[in-house]
Amino acid sequence: MNFEFSEEQEQFRKILRDFAKEELLPHYTKWDREGITPRHLWKRLGDLGVNGLRIPEEYGGSGADCVTTGIAAEEIGRGDFNLTYAVMLNALIGEIIAKHGSADLKGEWLPQIASGDKIVGIAITEPSAGTDAGGIQSTAKLEGNYYVLNGEKSGISVATCGDAFIIFAKTDPSLGNKGISAFLVPAELDGLETKGYEDMGNIPIGRGSLYMNDVKVPVSNLIGSENKGFSQVMNGFDLSRLLIGLQCVGTAMQSIDETIEHVKIRKSFGRPLATYQAVSFSLVTHFTQLELIKWQAYRGLWLRDKNLDHSKESSSVKWLGPKYSVEAIHECLLLNGHYAYTKEMPLEQRLRDVIGLEIGDGTAQANQMVIAKGIIGKEFRTY
Amino acid sequence: MNFEFSEEQEQFRKILRDFAKEELLPHYTKWDREGITPRHLWKRLGDLGVNGLRIPEEYGGSGADCVTTGIAAEEIGRGDFNLTYAVMLNALIGEIIAKHGSADLKGEWLPQIASGDKIVGIAITEPSAGTDAGGIQSTAKLEGNYYVLNGEKSGISVATCGDAFIIFAKTDPSLGNKGISAFLVPAELDGLETKGYEDMGNIPIGRGSLYMNDVKVPVSNLIGSENKGFSQVMNGFDLSRLLIGLQCVGTAMQSIDETIEHVKIRKSFGRPLATYQAVSFSLVTHFTQLELIKWQAYRGLWLRDKNLDHSKESSSVKWLGPKYSVEAIHECLLLNGHYAYTKEMPLEQRLRDVIGLEIGDGTAQANQMVIAKGIIGKEFRTY
Amino acid sequence: MNFEFSEEQEQFRKILRDFAKEELLPHYTKWDREGITPRHLWKRLGDLGVNGLRIPEEYGGSGADCVTTGIAAEEIGRGDFNLTYAVMLNALIGEIIAKHGSADLKGEWLPQIASGDKIVGIAITEPSAGTDAGGIQSTAKLEGNYYVLNGEKSGISVATCGDAFIIFAKTDPSLGNKGISAFLVPAELDGLETKGYEDMGNIPIGRGSLYMNDVKVPVSNLIGSENKGFSQVMNGFDLSRLLIGLQCVGTAMQSIDETIEHVKIRKSFGRPLATYQAVSFSLVTHFTQLELIKWQAYRGLWLRDKNLDHSKESSSVKWLGPKYSVEAIHECLLLNGHYAYTKEMPLEQRLRDVIGLEIGDGTAQANQMVIAKGIIGKEFRTY
Amino acid sequence: MNFEFSEEQEQFRKILRDFAKEELLPHYTKWDREGITPRHLWKRLGDLGVNGLRIPEEYGGSGADCVTTGIAAEEIGRGDFNLTYAVMLNALIGEIIAKHGSADLKGEWLPQIASGDKIVGIAITEPSAGTDAGGIQSTAKLEGNYYVLNGEKSGISVATCGDAFIIFAKTDPSLGNKGISAFLVPAELDGLETKGYEDMGNIPIGRGSLYMNDVKVPVSNLIGSENKGFSQVMNGFDLSRLLIGLQCVGTAMQSIDETIEHVKIRKSFGRPLATYQAVSFSLVTHFTQLELIKWQAYRGLWLRDKNLDHSKESSSVKWLGPKYSVEAIHECLLLNGHYAYTKEMPLEQRLRDVIGLEIGDGTAQANQMVIAKGIIGKEFRTY
Repeated sequence: MNFEFSEEQEQFRKILRDFAKEELLPHYTKWDREGITPRHLWKRLGDLGVNGLRIPEEYGGSGADCVTTGIAAEEIGRGDFNLTYAVMLNALIGEIIAKHGSADLKGEWLPQIASGDKIVGIAITEPSAGTDAGGIQSTAKLEGNYYVLNGEKSGISVATCGDAFIIFAKTDPSLGNKGISAFLVPAELDGLETKGYEDMGNIPIGRGSLYMNDVKVPVSNLIGSENKGFSQVMNGFDLSRLLIGLQCVGTAMQSIDETIEHVKIRKSFGRPLATYQAVSFSLVTHFTQLELIKWQAYRGLWLRDKNLDHSKESSSVKWLGPKYSVEAIHECLLLNGHYAYTKEMPLEQRLRDVIGLEIGDGTAQANQMVIAKGIIGKEFRTY
Repeated sequence: MNFEFSEEQEQFRKILRDFAKEELLPHYTKWDREGITPRHLWKRLGDLGVNGLRIPEEYGGSGADCVTTGIAAEEIGRGDFNLTYAVMLNALIGEIIAKHGSADLKGEWLPQIASGDKIVGIAITEPSAGTDAGGIQSTAKLEGNYYVLNGEKSGISVATCGDAFIIFAKTDPSLGNKGISAFLVPAELDGLETKGYEDMGNIPIGRGSLYMNDVKVPVSNLIGSENKGFSQVMNGFDLSRLLIGLQCVGTAMQSIDETIEHVKIRKSFGRPLATYQAVSFSLVTHFTQLELIKWQAYRGLWLRDKNLDHSKESSSVKWLGPKYSVEAIHECLLLNGHYAYTKEMPLEQRLRDVIGLEIGDGTAQANQMVIAKGIIGKEFRTY
Repeated sequence: MNFEFSEEQEQFRKILRDFAKEELLPHYTKWDREGITPRHLWKRLGDLGVNGLRIPEEYGGSGADCVTTGIAAEEIGRGDFNLTYAVMLNALIGEIIAKHGSADLKGEWLPQIASGDKIVGIAITEPSAGTDAGGIQSTAKLEGNYYVLNGEKSGISVATCGDAFIIFAKTDPSLGNKGISAFLVPAELDGLETKGYEDMGNIPIGRGSLYMNDVKVPVSNLIGSENKGFSQVMNGFDLSRLLIGLQCVGTAMQSIDETIEHVKIRKSFGRPLATYQAVSFSLVTHFTQLELIKWQAYRGLWLRDKNLDHSKESSSVKWLGPKYSVEAIHECLLLNGHYAYTKEMPLEQRLRDVIGLEIGDGTAQANQMVIAKGIIGKEFRTY
Repeated sequence: MNFEFSEEQEQFRKILRDFAKEELLPHYTKWDREGITPRHLWKRLGDLGVNGLRIPEEYGGSGADCVTTGIAAEEIGRGDFNLTYAVMLNALIGEIIAKHGSADLKGEWLPQIASGDKIVGIAITEPSAGTDAGGIQSTAKLEGNYYVLNGEKSGISVATCGDAFIIFAKTDPSLGNKGISAFLVPAELDGLETKGYEDMGNIPIGRGSLYMNDVKVPVSNLIGSENKGFSQVMNGFDLSRLLIGLQCVGTAMQSIDETIEHVKIRKSFGRPLATYQAVSFSLVTHFTQLELIKWQAYRGLWLRDKNLDHSKESSSVKWLGPKYSVEAIHECLLLNGHYAYTKEMPLEQRLRDVIGLEIGDGTAQANQMVIAKGIIGKEFRTY
């Protein structure tokens, strides 16, 4: 048993923490205000080896383990929550393509993902199928050397800036969620249109909808086997859910650090706020909750690295990581008082941003259902 | 004992609910997007008799009781949270001027407040004095027929659009919070400058700072006796705290109503969301908490109407009203899923807006201190 | 609108508070230790007019309103939680018999209930039918002038000391919960046996099971119409649920009062515990929650007095009253430290006792289902 | 990084789990009912190598690491919460004597502790000094070859059955908590009297007070250096606090396992309780909280094994371990319904027992103060 990160991991953490503090944090709010996806930062992450953590060395990545990927998610989160989407998406999509993509797909896309030159999103959710991912209605019909895709995807990250998307569609609608396949679909293909949303947060992520009208996708862009998309790829979400927890925790911990500095200095009735138990114990509570879920995330990532079951852990982290983080940031905002209500401090943006990951990638309820199955048994499906 | 509103009150409620639904709700997000204070709506409230509820009939108001004023706060909150500031500020300021202002002040300002022609704010908080209101540093020095005011006020509602402000300053700094006086200061006086903030919410309220540089205020604009401002006016906050609770509850209840309609229709795994206990019981919890604090607010208002002590009640409402409301709106946002994260639905704005009243007018901690004094005793000042 | 108790009610409250403090509190733990049902105290309650509050004057009661009955529940709770069962059971059973009983039944039983000479219980729950009361399996078969009852009832209060029980049984099993009738069954009838439980609390209540083997109950002991028992009597539970909330709140408030006295005196690091925010704010939180639910209970009782719908209110009080009270008493126990863990202080018994009413008379889930139906609609039955 | 227990540890866990299930659980309630300290079970733990885990091999122990000791605390907790006191006390006291005791003390006491022949307690708390341990008033005056002890200790575990106690007393009262020394005091010494309490739980632990009237303790029974007792021994509490967390978690996890079996079988409205989200999600919540704090405990123990700082971790575990466990057991009791309120099921006793460790060995507040110092800084002492 060993709860220590390796020296290499600690060094990686230090590099990223410095980077986050010096290069990301000062500009975090800029991209929100201006509504820009900072593509140059995705490339900076490429230089730092962050994008390619889950991509094999032969394709331009480092083939690092999941625990190391978690460190990146946490530390980038301290500087720029929205940029953590790069860590998570590239890990998720890198893994999926590396595991299930054809040699051609790998050769073409993985190096460009690793370098940060290309942004690739993933599109499952539809207007009428969220938690119930098996209920999607998009279709992919094989016609010669192409699959012809039709349908609508909603709530898709990087919709407005993605260079390609892994899109899920039913190749055999009669089989329910056992008839779903996954395709890598370049954004420029005919018939694919995107529409961005005006969101409350995660602005630089460019969330939006994809509309597919007879989009012809080459057969070679099928990822994995036909009708296996659902089970093959859903497994990837156990990774992204763990990373999401750490993304949020990193941002929340940074907020707590800043708030601790504030309450040491700010006085009320002649004493620093830090000396009031209602202040210090509240920080203690949020700090402790974040610590607990952080270590649950690393344990989950380690289990994944060892090929051991980690569904319950993953779902607990996706459920409580964003929740505890939102609560912590909200309290930090309140403890900083009037000034934190303005856009001159990053707290209000953090609150808006982190709420985005309370919704995306599995609701609290969906994740509790996974844990319930794990501890009670699948036959006791919970309503 | 009688928990029923009078027929007149019920009618007033109905008028305002219809007004809120038909005239306010459809445009609620417009003022936020455009950054506008909708002065014409303040005048509409004047027409509806809302601004003058706590202003005597002889000065253009209706001299209604506090309970009726609470109805207005709650119902306007269903349509436009930011407009509830009009209800609360006009009640608070109307009461203060009516009780403590000179005949001239009353004659000049009250009718214009009642009609909605003038917007008047109240300015106590300073950069280094929030919860500890007695620690303000602004000064007012008597020079002939004028008080000369100097200092800085921060976090002031309607700073950018107010026609006047009730400003607190020390007339005798040697006396601590017993040397504070209150002045009605027209916004156009020389030496008074305002600066708006870029806030996360409450945009149409135009929160900002006031800077006073040798502002000459006529002696007749002193409100109440010299050095009595603190105690005379602080009493008014027991009213505004109760109204604030109802403002938030109104907005939160409207969110719950809308979410109930959503979960009746939206299906997951073939069943309406409403049939899942994790959904319905969560709505039940938030609904019940809001009901509880709503009735505590009306009880507090009734106690005030009867001149009975209501400090504990008032502080409980200011503490838990915004808190329960933020929690409810947050949960409604999550239950509405992806779409509620966009600005096309009002929920994200409600969240941003209501958080503003978690901070302003007394923090959670400040209000718990009041209740602690009430149940434990003043000598056990709590740290 | 009027949140004030009448002078008469205040006087009644004062009498009972003094009685609770002087005659009940000093002996509260005695009956627990000795395992005795203090029948003489039921008679004392009779003398004080508590047992007959919901019994018409012509049958020895006072025909008081529900609000007044609530006062009794709350105040007796300050002295002896277990004795509040007398308030609640006598109100519930008094009402049922008065409303639905034959003249003979009324004449025989109501005066003896009012005086405290007879203890009557109510028996619905069965080993396999708790929340789902319609699923009971006990049967009552009409044979000549008798109904012959068979079946088993479990978790029945006053099982070991009751002189009679209102027992629910199916007169027409084919009709589901529309084939249930209610009978007043004297305890001494042949074929009726009782067995007491060894419970964690509520010892003086003598909870246990009833076993019915061909119990011959005279036709005149049918309460209400045949096959109407369920709907006629279930309505009574909206009263008992409101009273239960107040019983618990009374006991919890007394615990808070005692704990406030403790933290004023007990010092740590040279200062009274009361001056630590973690202590005072915790008391503030529990006090406020109890206040909120207390007023919800009185509002519910008033609605009942006015024949207005009060199901939601009633269920909220049954759900949160015991819950908030258990939480408050638990915290009081912890704030009193080591000594409160002994049986020399009443707190540990209060905790054990009040938990009993978290279970009985409707679980948290059952009550949330009622509220869900109320706010979402019956057609969205929640699973 | 490695979150896996060693094969040896897993084997040890299996042995103890089987032992707990087969030999402890069936008799858990027996010792409570009969008020007996089952000394034969302390000896059984000796046979199983549990008592000597933190005692060097040369003195009859196994010198195991802290993580392994944690396993014992958790697994014994599944069978008999009160017997976990043996694990914790013997680890704590074994460590203290092994680290700071004279050769004679070690030779005499450690083998008998390891074997389970002797029970040794630890006595710090006094009637007027709980959280503020430095405020004790007992004195030890050196007179020739003896220290003469006077004073009173309260809330001491194994007071009524201990063969000896490590007693803290002031050897130099002028130095505050820097003048405290620790002594091993055999129970049979003249002048030492004990009095047991009638407690709500932990009955077999025999909690009580020690009264010292001129107790002559040989100089060789001083543990550590004079005036160093406080700092030398307080360090041991970072171990016991971690073990306490696991003791509670083990008992709570066992309760959850049993409750899961119950809700799979028990039906309401025709469906197993397990299929209701209000039931399954509640179990999920408690299970997850327990998992989180369990791993925090093992991480803390590992940090201790590595001589790394673990005060914050230790305090978080002492604070939240008992708290989460009490909450889980309470909910399990409610989910088991009426029957769980009786003494035929172990849940009510678990609730009573585990509450004991919410109080002893550091309150929630005391532990939050430790964490606050850790994250904010010692100079911001929190009130």
